[in-house]
Order: sequence, then C-alpha cells, then structure tokens
Amino acid sequence: MDERVREHAEVLVDWSARIEEGDDVVLSVGPDAHELAVAVAEKLGERGANLLATYSSGEITRAYLRAHDGEFDENPDHERALLEETDVYLSIGGGRNTSATADVPGDVRSEYRDARTEIREARYDTRWVSTYHPTRALAQQAEMAYEEYQEFVYDAVLRDWESLADEMAQMKELLDEGSEVRLVSEGTDLTMQIDDRTAVNSAASVAYDSHNLPSGEVFTAPYGTEGEVTFDVPMTLRGESVRNVRLEFEDGEVVDHEAEQGESVVGDILEADEGARRLGELGIGMNRAIDRHTDNIMFDEKMGDTVHLAVGRAYDACLPDGESGNDSAVHVDMITDVSEDSRLEIDGEVVQENGQFRWE
Amino acid sequence: MDERVREHAEVLVDWSARIEEGDDVVLSVGPDAHELAVAVAEKLGERGANLLATYSSGEITRAYLRAHDGEFDENPDHERALLEETDVYLSIGGGRNTSATADVPGDVRSEYRDARTEIREARYDTRWVSTYHPTRALAQQAEMAYEEYQEFVYDAVLRDWESLADEMAQMKELLDEGSEVRLVSEGTDLTMQIDDRTAVNSAASVAYDSHNLPSGEVFTAPYGTEGEVTFDVPMTLRGESVRNVRLEFEDGEVVDHEAEQGESVVGDILEADEGARRLGELGIGMNRAIDRHTDNIMFDEKMGDTVHLAVGRAYDACLPDGESGNDSAVHVDMITDVSEDSRLEIDGEVVQENGQFRWE
Repeated sequence: MDERVREHAEVLVDWSARIEEGDDVVLSVGPDAHELAVAVAEKLGERGANLLATYSSGEITRAYLRAHDGEFDENPDHERALLEETDVYLSIGGGRNTSATADVPGDVRSEYRDARTEIREARYDTRWVSTYHPTRALAQQAEMAYEEYQEFVYDAVLRDWESLADEMAQMKELLDEGSEVRLVSEGTDLTMQIDDRTAVNSAASVAYDSHNLPSGEVFTAPYGTEGEVTFDVPMTLRGESVRNVRLEFEDGEVVDHEAEQGESVVGDILEADEGARRLGELGIGMNRAIDRHTDNIMFDEKMGDTVHLAVGRAYDACLPDGESGNDSAVHVDMITDVSEDSRLEIDGEVVQENGQFRWE
Repeated sequence: MDERVREHAEVLVDWSARIEEGDDVVLSVGPDAHELAVAVAEKLGERGANLLATYSSGEITRAYLRAHDGEFDENPDHERALLEETDVYLSIGGGRNTSATADVPGDVRSEYRDARTEIREARYDTRWVSTYHPTRALAQQAEMAYEEYQEFVYDAVLRDWESLADEMAQMKELLDEGSEVRLVSEGTDLTMQIDDRTAVNSAASVAYDSHNLPSGEVFTAPYGTEGEVTFDVPMTLRGESVRNVRLEFEDGEVVDHEAEQGESVVGDILEADEGARRLGELGIGMNRAIDRHTDNIMFDEKMGDTVHLAVGRAYDACLPDGESGNDSAVHVDMITDVSEDSRLEIDGEVVQENGQFRWE
C-alpha cells in the first residue's frame, strides 16, 4: 500500500475525527475508495473503535431512485437507529463515474432528500468528517492525470494542520471582531454584515467545528448583503458547467443574476426556496496546497487566494446561540479568484490584497 | 447488464426474502458484488422498500482485526440498533480473494465472534438471506473458468423453486414422520434419531425457513448418533484442505476421528466445545443443478446425490418449541457422495438408493 494512503487514514482518524477507544464508527465507503477504507479500518482497530462499514455507490442510488415511485418513507427506522447510536461518521468518497446519478430526475432527488431530514440531522450530530480517496474518475473530473491527481490530493490532505490552524486563527479573529466585510475585485463590489457572527477556523478537525478533509478555510455567515459579485472560478452545478456567474444583491437578497454559461441552473437554485436568495456563507480559502480548481467543491472552496460565497443554508456554528440563520434546503458555493486586482476589507481596513494577507 | 444478474436479483427479492413495500432492508455488499447489488437496488426501489447498503470486505475485516488488541466491545450499540430495526438482511458475498482473512489469528476471530452474539442473533431474527455474486475469486476457488462458473451459479440459482419445493416436500414428510435414519455407503454405516424433530424444506425462501440462495436441501436435527461416517467430498475448512474425514460415533458423540488430509483442523473443530462433538444437522442435497463441488459450502451442501452432516449447532426450526437443541458455537458441514453403492433408510425403509429417491 502507498504509504500516503496510511498517512491519509491517520490524519482522518486522529486529527480530523479525534477517534478514541469505544467510539462507534460508521465508515461510508465509495466503490473505488476501498484502499483508503482498509487503511482506516487498520487505524480504527489500533484505536479500539467499533467499525461498521456502509457502501455509498452512485450506481446503487441511481438504480434505486429511478425504480422507486417517488413516495419515500420518512426517515426509515433502521437507518435512523444506526445514525442515532453512532459517535463518528466517516465518509470516504470515490466512485468510478462522477456522473453516476446524472439521469435521476431532479424532483425524485428532492423528494428523497426531503424524506431523510432527520437521518441527515442525526448524521450532523455525530463527529462527522468527509474526505475523498483519489480515484481515476475524480482525476478525470479535475482534467488531470491519475498520478498527478494523487499528488494534488495528498499535498492538500497531508498538511501540518496545527500550523495552518494557527495561521487561520488570525483571520478568524479579524472576522469575529469585525462588523462589515467588503470584497472588491473585477466585476465585484460587495458588502456584507457579520456583527454577532462567529467565524469557523476550519482546520479539518471536529475539534474546530470543521468536517472536511482537506479543509483550510475560514468561514462565517453574513447577512444584509449589498452590491454585486462575479464568480470567475469554473464549476459544475447539478451536472452542468457554470461560468462567470454574476449576482446582484439588494437588502440581503439576490435581485438579479446572469452567467456566461449555466444561467438557468443558477436560476433554479435561487428559486429553490426563500433562503436560497440570501447568502449562507462567506469563506476565505487558505489551503495554498490547493493551487488549482479540480471541479470538486470540497477542494475548490479551500483553494488559496480565493473567496467563496454560498447561497442558502448557514452553518449553526457561525450563528448566535438559538438562532437558526438562513433557513434553506440548499447550500451552493461559488468561488471568485482574489489573487489579482482584489482586496478584502473588514470595517474599512484591508486584510487581504491580491491574495496577500495583512500579516504576510 | 447480463440479464441473469437481474433475474438473480428478482429471485432474491421476491422469492427468497418476500420483500414488500415499507420493509427496512440492509443490503450487505461484497467488494466484487457491485453489479448484483445494483440490480437488487433496482428491485428494492420497485417494491418501495427502504435500502441501506453495508460493505462486507475481508480485507477491511483483516486490517481491523489484526490491528485490534483483541479486547472487543460487546455488541456495539450502533450496529445492534441497526439490526434490531431491520426487517430484511440480504447478504451478497463476492470478494476478490477467498483467502483475504487467512492471516488473522484464530483466537482473535473467536474473540470477535463471541463479542457479537447479540448482533448475530438480531440478524437471525430478520428475514435474512445469503447469496453470492459469481466473482473471479469464487471461480478460482471452484477451479473453474469465469464464464463456466457464472453458468454454474445461475443454473443453481435460477430454478423453478416452486416445483423443487414440491419435490422436496416429499422428503420432508418422510423425515417428519420417521424416527430413525440410517445412512449406508462405502466407509459409512450410521444411525441417527429424528423423533420429534421437524425437517426444513429448504427452498431458498424465508417462507420455508430457508435462508440461502441457492438452496435445495431438506435438513433436520438428529440426535443419538451411532456408527461411522466417511465424508468423501473434498472441502476447505478454516483455510485448510480436508479430505476423507472419518468420524466414529457412540451414544451421540464423536469418539474417534481421522482424515487423509486436515485431520488436525477437524480435531480443533471437534474440541471447540461440548456441542461440537454432536451432530447438529442431517441434510439431503436435492439441487441437481449443482452437479459438482466448488469448495463453497453454500453450494456444495445442496449438491444433488449427496448427504451432509454438521457437527455443532442445530437450527431452531428443526427443534420442538422451546428446546435449544445442540448448543455450540460451531456449525461445520461435511459432505458424502451417495450417488453409488449407497442407501438412505428411514425406519428400515429405503428412501434413496444410489442417489435415486423412492418416488423417482
């Protein structure tokens, strides 16, 4: 086994999920993620955790959903019972075809998702962490050779997380103390309110309220957004290529949108519900090992020298206690490059200019 | 997809597990059983059942068990909760290496198995069915070419089960009405008591108390065994080749054993516990589509023109209500060819001679 696979497993088990003896762990394994799953099982055995492996396959989901009449039972008992009794949920993505569910009708997906709200909440109540095993299908999505993609993934994952967390703490402090953020770049001049909001230092560990490996971003939940923003990092949304989305905000809500490509899918997202027209997240990408976009949002949104915004749901960790934030069924991130002709201000003070942070 | 895979899925879902709308189903998928799992997912969707897929990999089990210190938590809550809320448990075996766990120490396996008794019991309380997807590793174990093995498996699985069940009902009736069974063959002259015992017409369906696909045997739980038996069908037990095992019984217990090959592994099994020296099962193989041994007990024991006996645990379905039968942690089947120079008698009457049943 490639030693990097074992190192990936160790970061996931020890740094990210903080697994201890006696933890009940669900390990969700993608069809091509077998090798990392074996390495994780070894670590779980060493730690004395209790392992149950589940199988997460787009082809199985597709076959099931297309055959179903669409009237799904709400939160099936067996799966809910499993999640409610689980301490840690580790998801290792990695299929053989990133378009495996492309022909499942959107309304069937929505019905299925809506019928599983409590199961999803139970999962979010665990110490959950999502990661990816580098597969050929993901390499293809990234337009990279397989070995090139493996290096990219391990560079992003096998970091000195403690040290990155220390660096990111500076950005968290600025956001926690600030009241207003302004982002200025080509096609972008946007102001957002962040008073009373708490930023997450997303250092790829549940100990930091961070649930992705890799991570490497600082994010908060803005409101009262005004102005315009252009997202120039290409991406795929719901199976469609999207390029240069431009959103215009008034009084916290999107009042106009356009895109060079994929305008209709952006429109669909904004119309999902009322919350989908407001921002749920402002995130600052700080993992500079991620130096290119690979059309996988878990990596892209952490890219160094980028800022991303999500329409839809906000994370509870960013909100004052008891506040539910921007209630929405969607959370869709879009990314803008801030490496050139760009600045990020907090309360009128420049904190990042052309990608360079104030402390650099 | 090979149409036989879809047919296999349909037999499993409809005939074997009798799945209905609203059933909570766990589908346990082996690493190379993906294709059958997709076909089963489609059927589960059509029926409106609720699907959770688990991943059953020998390599994951090996990595976990070898790394663990051997002090396993008893019946972890998350897995127990899952099984207790599950209506149907479908296991699709099919790995990439039938020796994947060969280097896990025997005592670690035992400790792990013993720590999971309640989980296993919860699984047996569901409408559970085990089957195999024909994989290259299983073909290799059977010493067959891959396509040859596929044909073998589908011939065994895609049967007219209703009609085989009708035929087997005749053998069940004879066993249910009889008191003493005698098996005579080369190296074999054995008598067993079956009074008060109920035979299972194992027609590959939970509706018949039958949990294997394929099945095709009639079995009961004998006692008071006297005489000697020779098992001439080759097999692998706990990773070791075993040939021509001869057991001698007095007063229901094995008093002597020998084997041309694998004598020590047979000795280990017989010494597992007190129940391991008594018979737990007498089975008559009646699936003539299984016309050769393939070193996979689920198939071999159903082979036409064979009789098998298991030392160890008896199935509850064969026992008078409330009786726990032959209490043992083991259940190891061994098989004898009855196609030539052989007869099976019930209460002195020949019911099978040289493989031919009385009604044939």
